[in-house]
Amino acid sequence: MEGAVADYLEHASDRHVAELRELLRIPSVSTAPEHGDDMAACAQWLLAHLERIGLEHVRLLETGGNPIVYGDWLHADAAPTVLVYGHYDVQPSAPDELWDSPPFEPEVRDGRLYARGATDNKGQIFAALAALEALLAVDGSLPCSVRILIEGEEELSADNLTAFLTANAGTEVLEADLALITDSGILAAETPGVTTALRGMAAMQFTLRTAASDLHSGVYGGAVPNAPLALAQLLATLKDPATGRILVEGFYDDVRPIPDEERRAWASLPHDDAELAAELGVTSLAGEEGFTTLERMWGRPTLDVTGAWGGHTGAGLKTIIPAEAHATVSCRLVPDQDAERVLEVLERHLRAHAPAGAAFTVDWILPGCWPIVLAADDPAIEAALAAAEEGFGRPATVFRAGWSVPIVELFKRIVGLDSVLLGFSLPDENMHAPNEFIRLDVFDRGVRTYAAFLANVANR
Amino acid sequence: MEGAVADYLEHASDRHVAELRELLRIPSVSTAPEHGDDMAACAQWLLAHLERIGLEHVRLLETGGNPIVYGDWLHADAAPTVLVYGHYDVQPSAPDELWDSPPFEPEVRDGRLYARGATDNKGQIFAALAALEALLAVDGSLPCSVRILIEGEEELSADNLTAFLTANAGTEVLEADLALITDSGILAAETPGVTTALRGMAAMQFTLRTAASDLHSGVYGGAVPNAPLALAQLLATLKDPATGRILVEGFYDDVRPIPDEERRAWASLPHDDAELAAELGVTSLAGEEGFTTLERMWGRPTLDVTGAWGGHTGAGLKTIIPAEAHATVSCRLVPDQDAERVLEVLERHLRAHAPAGAAFTVDWILPGCWPIVLAADDPAIEAALAAAEEGFGRPATVFRAGWSVPIVELFKRIVGLDSVLLGFSLPDENMHAPNEFIRLDVFDRGVRTYAAFLANVANR
Repeated sequence: MEGAVADYLEHASDRHVAELRELLRIPSVSTAPEHGDDMAACAQWLLAHLERIGLEHVRLLETGGNPIVYGDWLHADAAPTVLVYGHYDVQPSAPDELWDSPPFEPEVRDGRLYARGATDNKGQIFAALAALEALLAVDGSLPCSVRILIEGEEELSADNLTAFLTANAGTEVLEADLALITDSGILAAETPGVTTALRGMAAMQFTLRTAASDLHSGVYGGAVPNAPLALAQLLATLKDPATGRILVEGFYDDVRPIPDEERRAWASLPHDDAELAAELGVTSLAGEEGFTTLERMWGRPTLDVTGAWGGHTGAGLKTIIPAEAHATVSCRLVPDQDAERVLEVLERHLRAHAPAGAAFTVDWILPGCWPIVLAADDPAIEAALAAAEEGFGRPATVFRAGWSVPIVELFKRIVGLDSVLLGFSLPDENMHAPNEFIRLDVFDRGVRTYAAFLANVANR
Repeated sequence: MEGAVADYLEHASDRHVAELRELLRIPSVSTAPEHGDDMAACAQWLLAHLERIGLEHVRLLETGGNPIVYGDWLHADAAPTVLVYGHYDVQPSAPDELWDSPPFEPEVRDGRLYARGATDNKGQIFAALAALEALLAVDGSLPCSVRILIEGEEELSADNLTAFLTANAGTEVLEADLALITDSGILAAETPGVTTALRGMAAMQFTLRTAASDLHSGVYGGAVPNAPLALAQLLATLKDPATGRILVEGFYDDVRPIPDEERRAWASLPHDDAELAAELGVTSLAGEEGFTTLERMWGRPTLDVTGAWGGHTGAGLKTIIPAEAHATVSCRLVPDQDAERVLEVLERHLRAHAPAGAAFTVDWILPGCWPIVLAADDPAIEAALAAAEEGFGRPATVFRAGWSVPIVELFKRIVGLDSVLLGFSLPDENMHAPNEFIRLDVFDRGVRTYAAFLANVANR
């Protein structure tokens, strides 16, 4: 990074924290209708801020719900256009009594800024805006063209955003070469890096029925099938307890092996199985034979029973043979699995293995998200890695996330846009929990990372 | 039966039905506190009736709850004493709108008397009283000594009765050679008979825990154990789906084989697998290889999952890896299984087979009931069989019931008293359901059966 930009940021640092505190003071809780005015106030604050730092075409883009705050700077003709994504809504703060300082009265303690939204996502999107501000102030221009989209319903539902993207795909506000997702994190402050892939998700709920109604266990016990036991027998066919392998035929067909360079990179990350097990309160980590914990969480597909129930589900005894039992099975998917095909092979397996006397029906399927991957040698990833090294002053590495970030999949599927996940939330920053905070030194490194990223993208 | 007793009953028939209708008109619902006065009125009606037919020492025996109606006739010095058991409380009548005539306004239609309690148990205990009345009226005496105990909490709880029996075991009111349980039934009006055995029951609820709390299925999926899946794997070890055999080591150790003469007797009973399956809405009956349906329901032990649950138990998806799962397993037991020993071997199995990473804890155990059996060649059974043949005018047979009748086990365990189950409820008489009824012709045969039984016991 140029010395002048770094100097600018150094001098602006206190003001930036003060501005971020203003933004955090607005309780923009999208899930609570009584915060409707706060949502509007927050959008207005951001509009004013975008104007202030020199963005153009600043305005609200209407959706079916809370509007998107938009601004752009499109004068880097030869360079790519980066669409910067963030969100201005926050999670509810409850239970407020567990906060050491009020959730919407930002407070700095020990170099950490505490407030709801500090790390998810106001602190991160504000860091990107601070980088743009510094570049525009120092250079009078940006190294590449930029569009800013800050949505207001990330914590609520993707429905309105999906409709917006669908309605506006191919139009000017979404015209870009790459999306920069600020709503993302790293493993530790000492190991900056870039998320190169997200797992997809597919789920199914089904029912086994063994009789017209529950039957008396004394009268009919021994002569009729038992739905929860049939369900147990069926679920037990899904996974090999010895190897952790999923036994659904065809499930692994499209799974792309984890490239060796990624396996090597992950192996160098700070991770300790015993520490993780202690933190989660599990007696032993468990998973697919032949893979490390990070590989299992990031690079391999999963099958989990997210819920199962049948018969009397409470204390005490009911003397019945339950007539029906239900389960919800969810799979996390990796490239190049297809959510719909996974549900097909799963349903085929369940139908084929349903015990005699148990009628199988699907209650619903959810082909929720397709897996997303950018190759570690993609120029955008290389630009992000170099930026993170510059911003953090340490070697950066590639890693993945096991969950889905719907916006990434929506950008890819609806708009055809690849995303780079370059954020710096840390796992202990109490996202969605009381005492959410952001480390101010990591915030500073994040600002520098974003500034460097735009330069690197221009030079790629 | 002597002609004089038969004649007496013939002449008294209309009055008996009128009296039974009076008894049925009293809504003695023990589970509803607002029926407290009705419970008292019902007990008073029975006291007056016992006096009227010539019993002695007629009084209420206090318990912690609704009192027991007591009377005796103890002048058959050389003959055994029979303790006649019944109950005067009834199930709630709801949903009343499904009754074709009001539940407490007894109505005769097509030879059937409709009312709540008609068959369970007012009609049956009244039949026993009618038999005593006839014998006393015609002969001036009974062939054997008799004590009547009619309790008021059979539909509520056995707690007060258990305390009463414990407090009064060895005292005069419980001094008897044999109990006659009127709260019992037969398979069809054309096949009278005697229940020679009841299954016992033992149950256990347990929990598997795999982590300190539910975990995010995207973040940790693939690396941690899943409680509902572990539960499924564990439950699946309990039974061989191919043979229906329970795989718990030691479970069958004390199981007494069904005597050949009983197997032959049961094979001659009216039973059709396809009809039963259709009635229950099961696609296929299922059970232990090598046994018929009646043998499975009456003479073999069972293991059923009466409830199982873990994770999100409702519609929709929750993206969790559930940290705990629960199940309740109940076993029906046959002679000579011991409820406590069965729970021991079951717990040992569950502990040994709990999947890695799943901590097993027992939430509660219920050694509910020990199995009860009287040999088919027991003199009391022979007396009852002969009485049923006389009362019904058809060959009588032995059968069993798969459920428990707590009073039988309590009499045996606390008072040391063997029971003969000689009732004539029929499976279609809507016990515990709307439109409960009793067939008046079967009622008449029941009265004759009871009269004959007392004579046969005296002559045994």
